[in-house]
Amino acid sequence: MALIVKKFGGTSVADKERIFNVARIIVDDYKMGNDIITVVSAQGDTTDDLIMKAKEINDGDISKREMDMLLTAGEQISISLLAMAIEKLGCPVISLLGWQAGFTTDSNHGIARIKNINTERIKSELAKKNIIIVAGFQGINKYDDLTTLGRGGSDTSAVAIAAAFHAKRCQIYTDVDGVYTADPRKVRGAQKLSEITYDEMLELATLGAQVLNNRSVEMAKKYNVELEVLSSLEKKVGTIVRENVKMEKMLIRGVTSDKDVATISVVGLKDSPGIAFKMFNKLAQFKINVDMILQSVGRNGTKDITFTVSRSQADIAIESIESLKSVFNYSEISKDVSVTKLSIVGAGMESHPGVAAKMFEALYDSNINIRMISTSEIKISVLIDEKQTEKAVQAVHDAFLA
Amino acid sequence: MALIVKKFGGTSVADKERIFNVARIIVDDYKMGNDIITVVSAQGDTTDDLIMKAKEINDGDISKREMDMLLTAGEQISISLLAMAIEKLGCPVISLLGWQAGFTTDSNHGIARIKNINTERIKSELAKKNIIIVAGFQGINKYDDLTTLGRGGSDTSAVAIAAAFHAKRCQIYTDVDGVYTADPRKVRGAQKLSEITYDEMLELATLGAQVLNNRSVEMAKKYNVELEVLSSLEKKVGTIVRENVKMEKMLIRGVTSDKDVATISVVGLKDSPGIAFKMFNKLAQFKINVDMILQSVGRNGTKDITFTVSRSQADIAIESIESLKSVFNYSEISKDVSVTKLSIVGAGMESHPGVAAKMFEALYDSNINIRMISTSEIKISVLIDEKQTEKAVQAVHDAFLA
Repeated sequence: MALIVKKFGGTSVADKERIFNVARIIVDDYKMGNDIITVVSAQGDTTDDLIMKAKEINDGDISKREMDMLLTAGEQISISLLAMAIEKLGCPVISLLGWQAGFTTDSNHGIARIKNINTERIKSELAKKNIIIVAGFQGINKYDDLTTLGRGGSDTSAVAIAAAFHAKRCQIYTDVDGVYTADPRKVRGAQKLSEITYDEMLELATLGAQVLNNRSVEMAKKYNVELEVLSSLEKKVGTIVRENVKMEKMLIRGVTSDKDVATISVVGLKDSPGIAFKMFNKLAQFKINVDMILQSVGRNGTKDITFTVSRSQADIAIESIESLKSVFNYSEISKDVSVTKLSIVGAGMESHPGVAAKMFEALYDSNINIRMISTSEIKISVLIDEKQTEKAVQAVHDAFLA
Repeated sequence: MALIVKKFGGTSVADKERIFNVARIIVDDYKMGNDIITVVSAQGDTTDDLIMKAKEINDGDISKREMDMLLTAGEQISISLLAMAIEKLGCPVISLLGWQAGFTTDSNHGIARIKNINTERIKSELAKKNIIIVAGFQGINKYDDLTTLGRGGSDTSAVAIAAAFHAKRCQIYTDVDGVYTADPRKVRGAQKLSEITYDEMLELATLGAQVLNNRSVEMAKKYNVELEVLSSLEKKVGTIVRENVKMEKMLIRGVTSDKDVATISVVGLKDSPGIAFKMFNKLAQFKINVDMILQSVGRNGTKDITFTVSRSQADIAIESIESLKSVFNYSEISKDVSVTKLSIVGAGMESHPGVAAKMFEALYDSNINIRMISTSEIKISVLIDEKQTEKAVQAVHDAFLA
């Protein structure tokens, strides 16, 4: 009796057995009287295999337009196979490519943004009581060329469809059964959350809880689409992501760690006006994302600036600063890639001043040194030694969530 | 200085090396100042692999619409990879799917007919001096659903494009270097033809010389598109197929054999008016293609009718006649699948009465028994024992073409 959007990733449709597993989930909900629009990704490693084929042909700069032409074939295969499985189970079904489903995007091949969804075709197929299978990750630009939405694009496709059709819910199926307070494979006592806000989910996603793609959560928040993260393998209720969540006893929703962090230290900067601004401006020109920043007074009236970037950007960050050594006038620059960012996330912490203190105490009790700190309204992050990651996550989780 | 259409089959783009071989052929012609539109099929066994995947999912009746959705992904991969190879060689190029290239078809999924080619997109790409790579075998129907043209569809796509753009020539690249008077792997003295008419080519194609797809030759004849059959591996002139061909000494163009033949014999038919008509009408209802027919007088005023069909249709032919046994009132029906149809083809034979006699004499001299005969203006076919095929082809070839 409701319109439900479902999304299955590549692992969920990797082979015949999994395709039928997905087909059964869809058919069960359809038979309960629901309208179903399902978004799927390319099967298993298809996308990676196609990229490898392309790189074999051309190891230099491949035209992004041709790459999108190649990659979009992946979902074309998975949607038709899934439709065939649903047919085999005896239900009416139709598969639609991104452009057939009405996805128009801008022309940034490889990282295109959805501009509009023309809902006509899907509406007419829903009117015929067809189950609809849509190729995720892809659309078409104004020149009639195929485009892709970039990493996590199928999540974005699903949320966009849910928004366009005012779906009751957008179910994102994964290989975990919901969002946890910490990685349950690594942290004792990690608990599944029944609900979480968009903002909390965004912080968790950014911080390395690889459950939902950020762009899709942002879009869900913007259009107020209720998400559910749930398992494609076990039939049970997942975690709901929405704006208003019942207050629970928990102050924080989760503890996460992110090892993709490097610190860059610029030591002995001559203190001239606007020097920090110039440095971060330079880094921005190189599209380097700076996260935490620590500025301190050094010897002889100089300044030291330490900041964090992702590990893959550490060397280019150093190069971009070195290219202006005469301007910045520092004595030394160095990087450290043996660090981890540990964070706690929770919308409740805003109104509870003791949260930071409790976190620092838990770390202190476990002899873990804090190197940098950054906070937002719903998040506190600290930088620690990478080797202490597991111990630190467990200690903080125990303090708040045990 | 001319517009040339080229077509490469799946074997020609099966792997990286072959893709670059094709790319070089295209780039060479482009650099001589020609406009190039190239039609390609799916790589190697891709289409068969995809069909196998589909049959794994559903071994029953698969929706032809979904099958077309699946199969068209095959050419999507090959066109983008070929475009990447041409890019790597430094030339401007764009790949286009069937629908992007303007192919609209009817809705007979799996065996669709081209209705129209909208030439706008290709024209604008030619104006930009782009080499154009088009996905063969595919188009789109009026509902915006993807369709396929059936077996040999890429040849048809190429000829249709050549017709729509009044191309100077449509080059069909294969693994042989032209059309021969007989299969050169089997017949001593087989010669490559420099030219051949459409009608002769059609007869040769029908008779089992698997060089060009029939539909594409018919279309080339209708729109007067000059074809060239040539090798993608050796750089040399192939065989030209066109309406007017210089008269050569050869009376006939080729000798072919077709083993996909079965005879059905209906013995002891009571001779009532229209009985043969009723029988062939019945067979037509079952979409059975009857080729040669022999009617003879049997014992006691009855008739015997023998006809040939393809081997795969032999059993259904028998069943369809048996279903009306009371009407046909025959005493016996049987099939024989150990026969071969041997044919000679040549536009010149019309004006030379001795051709048939010469063919029969050659067979007689080799002790080969002729079981049935059929003739057209440019062809003489005889039915012989399958075991004598090779000997018969050689004998007839020696008589006419040695």
